[in-house]
Amino acid sequence: MSMSAQSLAQLRVGPGGGFNLAEHDTRWLPDGLASLKKKARRSAGDRLLAANKLDLEEAQALLYADGQYSVLIVLQAMDAAGKDGTIKHVMSGVNPQGCRVSGFKVPSALEVDHDFLWRYEKELPQRGQIGIFNRSYYEDVLVVRVHPQILDAQPLPEKPDGEAFWQGRYDDINNFEEHLVRNGTVVLKFFLNLSKEEQKRRFLARLDTPDKNWKFSAADIRERGYWDDYMDAFGRCINATATEVAPWWVIPADRKWAARAMVADIITNTINSLDLHYPQLSAAERKDLARARTELEAEG
Amino acid sequence: MSMSAQSLAQLRVGPGGGFNLAEHDTRWLPDGLASLKKKARRSAGDRLLAANKLDLEEAQALLYADGQYSVLIVLQAMDAAGKDGTIKHVMSGVNPQGCRVSGFKVPSALEVDHDFLWRYEKELPQRGQIGIFNRSYYEDVLVVRVHPQILDAQPLPEKPDGEAFWQGRYDDINNFEEHLVRNGTVVLKFFLNLSKEEQKRRFLARLDTPDKNWKFSAADIRERGYWDDYMDAFGRCINATATEVAPWWVIPADRKWAARAMVADIITNTINSLDLHYPQLSAAERKDLARARTELEAEG
Repeated sequence: MSMSAQSLAQLRVGPGGGFNLAEHDTRWLPDGLASLKKKARRSAGDRLLAANKLDLEEAQALLYADGQYSVLIVLQAMDAAGKDGTIKHVMSGVNPQGCRVSGFKVPSALEVDHDFLWRYEKELPQRGQIGIFNRSYYEDVLVVRVHPQILDAQPLPEKPDGEAFWQGRYDDINNFEEHLVRNGTVVLKFFLNLSKEEQKRRFLARLDTPDKNWKFSAADIRERGYWDDYMDAFGRCINATATEVAPWWVIPADRKWAARAMVADIITNTINSLDLHYPQLSAAERKDLARARTELEAEG
Repeated sequence: MSMSAQSLAQLRVGPGGGFNLAEHDTRWLPDGLASLKKKARRSAGDRLLAANKLDLEEAQALLYADGQYSVLIVLQAMDAAGKDGTIKHVMSGVNPQGCRVSGFKVPSALEVDHDFLWRYEKELPQRGQIGIFNRSYYEDVLVVRVHPQILDAQPLPEKPDGEAFWQGRYDDINNFEEHLVRNGTVVLKFFLNLSKEEQKRRFLARLDTPDKNWKFSAADIRERGYWDDYMDAFGRCINATATEVAPWWVIPADRKWAARAMVADIITNTINSLDLHYPQLSAAERKDLARARTELEAEG
């Protein structure tokens, strides 16, 4: 099942440099949902998500059997935009044997003693698998760009003293992703696009839920003070790293259920668009299996 | 929900050295299922599995929040005993962010240039997570014990020339697991106990299913020729490595649905028996969050 792939194609940001984050409505809905009456939307969205989860299970099984491609899903967003919830609600149901999630915290001393891509490379999915990066190397041009003093503690030969430094990192990322794609990794990058107002609502709701309280600190909330800097960093980053082989998908995220349905649809369609097949046995292998069967049956 | 924990306790093999694999019925059912009429058993088992999957989701969320323990699940068995199916049917539904499956193939040249535990250590689950080893370091005292010539290609200082070599490996494993347990990893080891007759039935069924044909080779089937050697190796291994801190669970595996329900029940009960709590904020943290809330609300 698919929610009008044509409609979702609007969310795809490819190369060209014309991306303007401010033009993207955080409450947009694809045609199939927008045309419904308000009350019917949510349940239609949930049905789409459920159907896509079943499709995704099958698509993953075929991806594994085919064994040529891996899928790297990158999730980037402001706090409370729904990264964790998207992973939970879209990917639970997929065989955990074919899906691996990696989160990235403050880098260790060993990690900052390597290039900035090093720690992410070690978590890349193997062929047949879906890897999910809950935050990624893009943090190195997002939070690090908003707070460049983070780099003061890192022994880099070149300090960030202008656009050239960041352009260098964008180039590194583009070359890295081109390399991945060339070698069989499908790179799917999602930006969950949340409005500042909706983030405030979600923060207040979290503060009212004791079981969620422990998950975040006052510092997380105060990071809102840099909202405009983050939007600027996201805009520049997406413009610079939306390539033909690894475009960005900018997902309207103010409605959690809609964002999850859209992400599930895009992942499923992407895997289904690959030319995947169950491996065929060679004539010699078939003959050998037939012989083994005869032996097995003759065991008595 | 639980299927009579007392009944399942019979499947637990602790230290003592009295384990005899031949005494374990591969079609045994726990009291709650055995007492039902034959027709009702399967659906009762499926209901138990479904209930346990929901419990497991919650248990995993609390394990993650608590953040002190990790759970390592080791699955060992003969081919076609249901390792992959158990992972798929028991663990799908768990948030993939908190569950990671590791499979181990033929070791690389780099891996055999390290001690035999090295490649497994790198895959251990972090605190808050469930790690599943689909085969494990136990292969190094199972398939390797049945085919010791595998070691000829490895530059070991000591060659296997008798029981002392294998006892050394059992000791290494016991010390390794004791170390894990001491540092907060719960070690759950399952042997899916399949009969030779049921393996034959499953092999024949696979040969008849084209979509599964590609998954195995005539060599896998012929490995049955070493059945008795494997049973001997499993028996010795379980006797030598069933410790108080890391016992084995010997799961009757001739009925797939029953094996899955039992494994799910044991995992859920084990996690629920830990003393897990949602973290409590300190007074200072609560005060800081309250201040952040006031600022958030004052934003206008």
